[in-house]
Amino acid sequence: MMRVGLCGLGTVGSGLFNLFSNNGEEINRKTGDAPKLIQVGCRRDHPDCDLSTTSVTRDIFDVARNPDVDILVELIGGTDTAKDLVMEAINNGKHVVTANKALIALHGDEVFAAAAEKNVTVRFEAAIAGGIPIVKSIREGLAGNRIEWVAGIINGTSNFILSEMASPGSNRSFEDVLKEAQDLGYAEADPTFDVEGIDAAHKLTILASIAFGVPLSFSAIYTEGISAVTSADIRFADELGYRIRHLGIARRRTDGVELRVHPTLVAREQILAQVDGVMNAVMVGSDAAGATMYYGAGAGAGPTASAVMADIIDVSRTGTSLSDIGFVDLSETRFVPIEEIRTSYYLRLAVVDRPGVMAEVTSILSEHEVSIEALIQKDARPSDAQIVIVTNDILESEINDAIRQLQSLDEVTAAISRIRIADFR
Amino acid sequence: MMRVGLCGLGTVGSGLFNLFSNNGEEINRKTGDAPKLIQVGCRRDHPDCDLSTTSVTRDIFDVARNPDVDILVELIGGTDTAKDLVMEAINNGKHVVTANKALIALHGDEVFAAAAEKNVTVRFEAAIAGGIPIVKSIREGLAGNRIEWVAGIINGTSNFILSEMASPGSNRSFEDVLKEAQDLGYAEADPTFDVEGIDAAHKLTILASIAFGVPLSFSAIYTEGISAVTSADIRFADELGYRIRHLGIARRRTDGVELRVHPTLVAREQILAQVDGVMNAVMVGSDAAGATMYYGAGAGAGPTASAVMADIIDVSRTGTSLSDIGFVDLSETRFVPIEEIRTSYYLRLAVVDRPGVMAEVTSILSEHEVSIEALIQKDARPSDAQIVIVTNDILESEINDAIRQLQSLDEVTAAISRIRIADFR
Repeated sequence: MMRVGLCGLGTVGSGLFNLFSNNGEEINRKTGDAPKLIQVGCRRDHPDCDLSTTSVTRDIFDVARNPDVDILVELIGGTDTAKDLVMEAINNGKHVVTANKALIALHGDEVFAAAAEKNVTVRFEAAIAGGIPIVKSIREGLAGNRIEWVAGIINGTSNFILSEMASPGSNRSFEDVLKEAQDLGYAEADPTFDVEGIDAAHKLTILASIAFGVPLSFSAIYTEGISAVTSADIRFADELGYRIRHLGIARRRTDGVELRVHPTLVAREQILAQVDGVMNAVMVGSDAAGATMYYGAGAGAGPTASAVMADIIDVSRTGTSLSDIGFVDLSETRFVPIEEIRTSYYLRLAVVDRPGVMAEVTSILSEHEVSIEALIQKDARPSDAQIVIVTNDILESEINDAIRQLQSLDEVTAAISRIRIADFR
Repeated sequence: MMRVGLCGLGTVGSGLFNLFSNNGEEINRKTGDAPKLIQVGCRRDHPDCDLSTTSVTRDIFDVARNPDVDILVELIGGTDTAKDLVMEAINNGKHVVTANKALIALHGDEVFAAAAEKNVTVRFEAAIAGGIPIVKSIREGLAGNRIEWVAGIINGTSNFILSEMASPGSNRSFEDVLKEAQDLGYAEADPTFDVEGIDAAHKLTILASIAFGVPLSFSAIYTEGISAVTSADIRFADELGYRIRHLGIARRRTDGVELRVHPTLVAREQILAQVDGVMNAVMVGSDAAGATMYYGAGAGAGPTASAVMADIIDVSRTGTSLSDIGFVDLSETRFVPIEEIRTSYYLRLAVVDRPGVMAEVTSILSEHEVSIEALIQKDARPSDAQIVIVTNDILESEINDAIRQLQSLDEVTAAISRIRIADFR
């Protein structure tokens, strides 16, 4: 029987504490040997947790030093103290289970190296997509495959905002829906982390590493959030048969690995486009299994605690016999700059409605060898018009040149919207 | 390093053979110790497989007797020879990996008992939903949860037929689309197994066992296929906001376990309704993680071989340290008869279009305490009409009584269509 020490008794920590109490018997039925929670380290009690029969310490480092603890669960968040705590636990020969995506994305290589040295394991299922067992599915469920790409809706806040902006007849602005998300507790008071894509980039860093065996490379990710998506874009996308989703995309190419997080047009009939609200979904393209998708709640006490508990049970059952480290190949990997991706694009131009504008726009595109897959022109006000274009596949650097030239036209009256289109299925 | 013997070189067997050749290096990178295919037992060669450097035997039982083989992979199908082969392998102390859902559903308890005695493991990820790692996700990914229900699209043939019948403007009959499915190779010449729900019931048998720990109980499943679904039902369902999906449903109740396979109306905006064509998807409801869904190709050489390989790698990495048997509780379980389920229903009645018919129909429903959630009346021909009703939740035995009484009315001119409605999310 493995003995667990829990550090952090916030939302997820309290969820895990109660999962131990409520499902201990069920877990014992399944495994024959349920892990046991023997110590909790927390600055203060949690109203949902009855700690009366639990050993509690106010110094989380006590847990890392407790010789009776086999597995330390880090749920305090942040990257400074959390890293010190995890490193101390590892140095004391304990396995570590964490839900901390920033810690793994930014310091994972160092943490894993220390764990390898001490022959302990560090698990982080809960760091990505909450209750969805995506780490296990990629590593073990698809172990026989060469993974080709991963495309995921991995930030519930962004997906909630995009879904709400697109709900029929809504016509609501980003700012308006963000306010609602904050009121509902889906977005933080400072929403930057979620809506600017940083949280998704942390998760994509980890996904790419486990999918392709490349080093954790947060700084290599091209990151764009959803704050520039307008209700006009959502309406035009709908008219063209698309929904806008905020995707984290990792793709193997012969010349490197693409890593990018950005709003994306996804054809309405594709299942990724059907993932609404705060739900998460990760689609994985692999050579034998083809495309598989994993869907569920990406956050919250229950789902996240479920993923933490799965890791604890896994470590209990397998010890270190399943090396995590074997999955990471620290060899030199080239990360493809965003200018080298090749995809199709949605462009929206606000223009003065006068003869010859369309000819000018299309001839600039043609000069840059951008072919047009679909085009909509709509008169906005008497003298203004909106031109919306869907291009064929083209190199990002080429479309950037075209956009720069279009933007310099006198007839173009506002910043051009450009959203990448993706086709993962 | 584990040594693998493969029995059966049909579609899946050849897929697995080639996965060993093509992805051996990738698997070695991931695991540090790739399993090795050392013998193939097959009646004849397969055109896609180069067997020149492989030890081949025409007697599959040679593989079960080969002292160098650690893991026997059974891909011959059927339940007679396959069972003998698997039992012989187990008796010779070999682990077994199989894709054979009928074998596990019908003889699993016996096979697992033999394996437990010999301290070997029997894995069957490929038996359900092809390349989707659903067994692993339920057993390990959701190990900390109490599973409450499973609802799956687990027969690609049926889902293809229902999707095609529903495609806009199609209006095609079951028979017509079945013919197309046969031409495309999605349905067998004798399609009974798929379209009458038997294949789905085999898979549901296994899903329920791993989800709830109940014995494998194929005979306890209520099974209804899709052959009675008409294009009229599909059009009316669409008008009411639903799609028809063939679901396998397993649900824990305080008084037992529900096990049922039948066509089901699913609200269009729910993600299960969006699973089209031959794709499979299994949604799992659990107490901590909530609803999670697993989606992918349910059949085919690549996806099925991917699942078989995942099992082989798992056994290689963990040996018998992860007992499969611990998950099954052979205690007495009550299976709830279909008459005791409580759900809402779609009813379609063809009636003579004459005054008072609607009053008669609704008063019979009211006598049986069936409340009406939605109602459509459409005139079909001058003197005929169709009445379509969506009920509130009611006991199946009650709706059966009501249907029996409605069916006896002179004004009802054809067999009443009755399709259950489900709401899993």
